[in-house]
Amino acid sequence: MAQMIFGEGATAPVTVEGFKGASTAANIRYHGRPDLGLIVSDVPAAIAGVFTRNRVKAAPVIHSMKQLAAGSRSARAILVNSGNANACTGAEGLESVHSICSMASKQLGIKPDEVFMCSTGVIGEQLPVGQFEKAMPDLVSGLKTDGMNEVARAIMTTDTIPKMAWACLEGRQDGVTVLGMAKGSGMIAPDMAPLHATMLSFIITDAKVDIDWWQEVLSLVTQKSFNRITVDGDTSTNDTVLAMANGVKCRDTIKGGAQAEELFEAVNLVAASLARQIVADGEGATKCVEVEVTGAKDSHDADLVARTIANSPLVKTAFYGQDPNWGRIIAAAGRAGVTIDPESISIAVDGIKIVEAGKGLGEDQEAKARRLMERDAFCIKVDLGIGKGRASILTCDLSVEYVNINADYRS
Amino acid sequence: MAQMIFGEGATAPVTVEGFKGASTAANIRYHGRPDLGLIVSDVPAAIAGVFTRNRVKAAPVIHSMKQLAAGSRSARAILVNSGNANACTGAEGLESVHSICSMASKQLGIKPDEVFMCSTGVIGEQLPVGQFEKAMPDLVSGLKTDGMNEVARAIMTTDTIPKMAWACLEGRQDGVTVLGMAKGSGMIAPDMAPLHATMLSFIITDAKVDIDWWQEVLSLVTQKSFNRITVDGDTSTNDTVLAMANGVKCRDTIKGGAQAEELFEAVNLVAASLARQIVADGEGATKCVEVEVTGAKDSHDADLVARTIANSPLVKTAFYGQDPNWGRIIAAAGRAGVTIDPESISIAVDGIKIVEAGKGLGEDQEAKARRLMERDAFCIKVDLGIGKGRASILTCDLSVEYVNINADYRS
Repeated sequence: MAQMIFGEGATAPVTVEGFKGASTAANIRYHGRPDLGLIVSDVPAAIAGVFTRNRVKAAPVIHSMKQLAAGSRSARAILVNSGNANACTGAEGLESVHSICSMASKQLGIKPDEVFMCSTGVIGEQLPVGQFEKAMPDLVSGLKTDGMNEVARAIMTTDTIPKMAWACLEGRQDGVTVLGMAKGSGMIAPDMAPLHATMLSFIITDAKVDIDWWQEVLSLVTQKSFNRITVDGDTSTNDTVLAMANGVKCRDTIKGGAQAEELFEAVNLVAASLARQIVADGEGATKCVEVEVTGAKDSHDADLVARTIANSPLVKTAFYGQDPNWGRIIAAAGRAGVTIDPESISIAVDGIKIVEAGKGLGEDQEAKARRLMERDAFCIKVDLGIGKGRASILTCDLSVEYVNINADYRS
Repeated sequence: MAQMIFGEGATAPVTVEGFKGASTAANIRYHGRPDLGLIVSDVPAAIAGVFTRNRVKAAPVIHSMKQLAAGSRSARAILVNSGNANACTGAEGLESVHSICSMASKQLGIKPDEVFMCSTGVIGEQLPVGQFEKAMPDLVSGLKTDGMNEVARAIMTTDTIPKMAWACLEGRQDGVTVLGMAKGSGMIAPDMAPLHATMLSFIITDAKVDIDWWQEVLSLVTQKSFNRITVDGDTSTNDTVLAMANGVKCRDTIKGGAQAEELFEAVNLVAASLARQIVADGEGATKCVEVEVTGAKDSHDADLVARTIANSPLVKTAFYGQDPNWGRIIAAAGRAGVTIDPESISIAVDGIKIVEAGKGLGEDQEAKARRLMERDAFCIKVDLGIGKGRASILTCDLSVEYVNINADYRS
C-alpha cells in the first residue's frame, strides 16, 4: 500500500499543480445554473480515454475516439456540457463538436486537437452552438486553480450532489496529487473500453507518465470500478472517462516499478470512490448494495449472475422494501443462463446467512438480515458452491422516486 | 382462417365437454379467498406441457417434467395452488408434491401419475400439506362443469383480474371448444421449453388429438405467445403451461390436415389472448406496449433488440410518463449487443414516425406520438434498416405502483 492521504466528497480541498478549472451558465438546457465546465492544463498533458461500447455513440464520443486514434495523446483541455448529450444528431452533431472545440482552442491559444469535448443530457437534440460561443470568453477568463469543484457541479444532470475523490501521495512522490470527478445518476451501466457510461469522469494528476502505461492504468482501473456498477442496466451513448497527467510535479516518467504501483493505487482508489458515489446517488436510490458472487464455475459466470441479480427489478424493489427476499435473488441467479446447482447456493446479508444449500434458514435469520438492510449500504453475498469464479457488482435499489424522476425527466 | 367464435375476458361463458372444475379456500397463505383449484377430465386426456428454463425449478415443475418424461402423457387432473411456489424447498418440497397428488388421486379414484400439480406464490416456504388434506374433500365434491371460472380466480396472486379466453369451432369440428386460463402479473418473462413463466396457464379442449402433434402445437404456440411477453424480465422458477385434450367431442384423432390447422389456430388465438391479458394486468401496469423490431440482420438480432427495449427501465418509465423519449429506445437498441447502424434506424409510435435515419423528426411529430401514448395500448415500431430480421415483444410500463407492490409483496 502506497503512502497517501485519500479523501472523497462533494468538494475537494486540494488542487493539482498546473491545472485550472472553470464553469459558467451557458443556458444549454438548464437555466440559472452552471452547465458548461472547462479543465485546462498549463502544459500539454498525456491523455487516456475509455468510452462507451454502446453501438450508438454520441458525437463527442466519436470525436474523442477519433482524436485519440489519430495520435492526439497529449491534450490541454477538456470541455464538458450538461443538459444535451449531442447523441443521435448525425453529421450536424459532429460538426458542432468541431466548431465548439475550435472556439475553445482559439480562446485558449492552443491547437484544436488539444481540446477534448464531452456532453451529457437529453438525446436527440442539436447543441445550441451559439450559446457555447457566447459563454466561451467568460468561461476561459474564469479559469482558476481551485476551479475543479465548479466543474464537478456544472456536469451534474439528475445527480443530487457533485462527486469528487482525491489522493495526495507522500514519501517518494511527495506532493503528487490525483483528483477525480464524476457525474452520473441514471442510464448507468457503464461498459467502457479503450478508444471505445451517461457517466462522465475526469481524473487529473500532476504526475509525469508514459502515455501507453497511463492508458493501461485507466483501462484496468475502469474494469474494476466504473464497469462494475449499475443503476438501471441502461448503458449510455455518452459514457466517457478521460485521464490527464501533466507531469508538472515529477522529473521521472512513470512507467513501472514502485512509483508506478503507488500512482496506480491512487488512481484506483479515486475511481473506486467515484464509482461508489455514482451508485449511492443513483436516481431515486435509498440503498447502495454490493452483490458479491462467489463459487461460480469461472469469473465470467460469476459476473453474469452478479449482473442479473443487480439489475433484477424484483430484487431491487425488495432492497427498497428492506426485505431479505432471497427467493427473488435465487430466481435471478437461475435465469442468468449459466450453470448453477440450486441446492448448492448459500446467501448472506452482511455476514448473516439466510440461505444454505438452496434452502431458507428461517425467520429468525431473516429478521436479523432485515435489520441490516435498514442501513444505507449492505452486501449480498451469493455463494454458488460449485467453483472458484467470483465477481462483484455495485447496485442500488429501485424506488418510487426512480419512477417519478424518469417519467418526468424530459418534459 | 378457421370458422370459430372467439372470446376473452374475466369470465368464460362456455364449458368444455367432459371437463369439470372447482376451487376452495385452503388457507395456504391467503385467507378468506379461494387458493386451491382443480381441473378434472372425465376420461384420460392427452397432456402436453412446457416449463420454465430457469435453472432453479420449483418442486411441482420438476415433478411434472418427470411425469411427462416417464411417459405419463395421459392425465385426468391438474391441481393448482396460489400463495406458495414450493420452490427452493429441496427434497421435502418434492415429497409434498408426491403426497398431495396421492391424496388427490385417492379422492378422485384415479392413478397418482394422472394428477399434475402446479404452484405459484412465495419462494422458499414448505407447502402446508395438512391444509391440502383438509381441503381436498370439499374441493373434489365441488367439481362442476361450469367450474373453470372459479379455478381461474383461485390461481391469482398479484393479478387484479382472472384471465380467460375461448374458441368454439364451427363447420367440420362444430362443437369443439378450446378454453384457456392464465395467471401472472409479476416475475413475468416466460422462457419455456417442452419438458422444460410465474405464469401458469391451462388450456383444455374436448378435441381428440395425437399426443406428439399436441405437444408440438403447445411448444409452437408458446413460442409465439407466452415466450414473447415481459413484465419485469424476471423469469420465474414456476412458469408452466399444461394443455389437456380429452377427445370427448371427436371421433377422429387430429394430427394433420385442415382440422389440425383449425384446432391449432384456436389454441393459438387462446394463448395469444391470455399472454396479452397477462401483460395488460402486469404489476402496476397502465400501458400494454408492443415493441416491434424490423430490419435487423436476422430474427435472433431482432429478438435481442426487442427484448432489450422492452425490459429497459428508462424506456418503461418513459411509457409510464407518456413520453415518446426515443433517445432511450435508441440507446437500448445500441446496448443489445448486436450489429446496428445508428443512422439507419427509424422509430414510429402507432404509425407516427418520430425518428428517421437515426435522427428525431421534431416536436410536432412527437406531440402526435405523445397523444397516441395516452392510450392503454400502443405499438412502438423500430426499423433497424439493415436486414430482414423481425421480432416483437409485448411489454408494459414501469409505474410507481409496480414499486409499491414489490416493495411490499412478501411482508
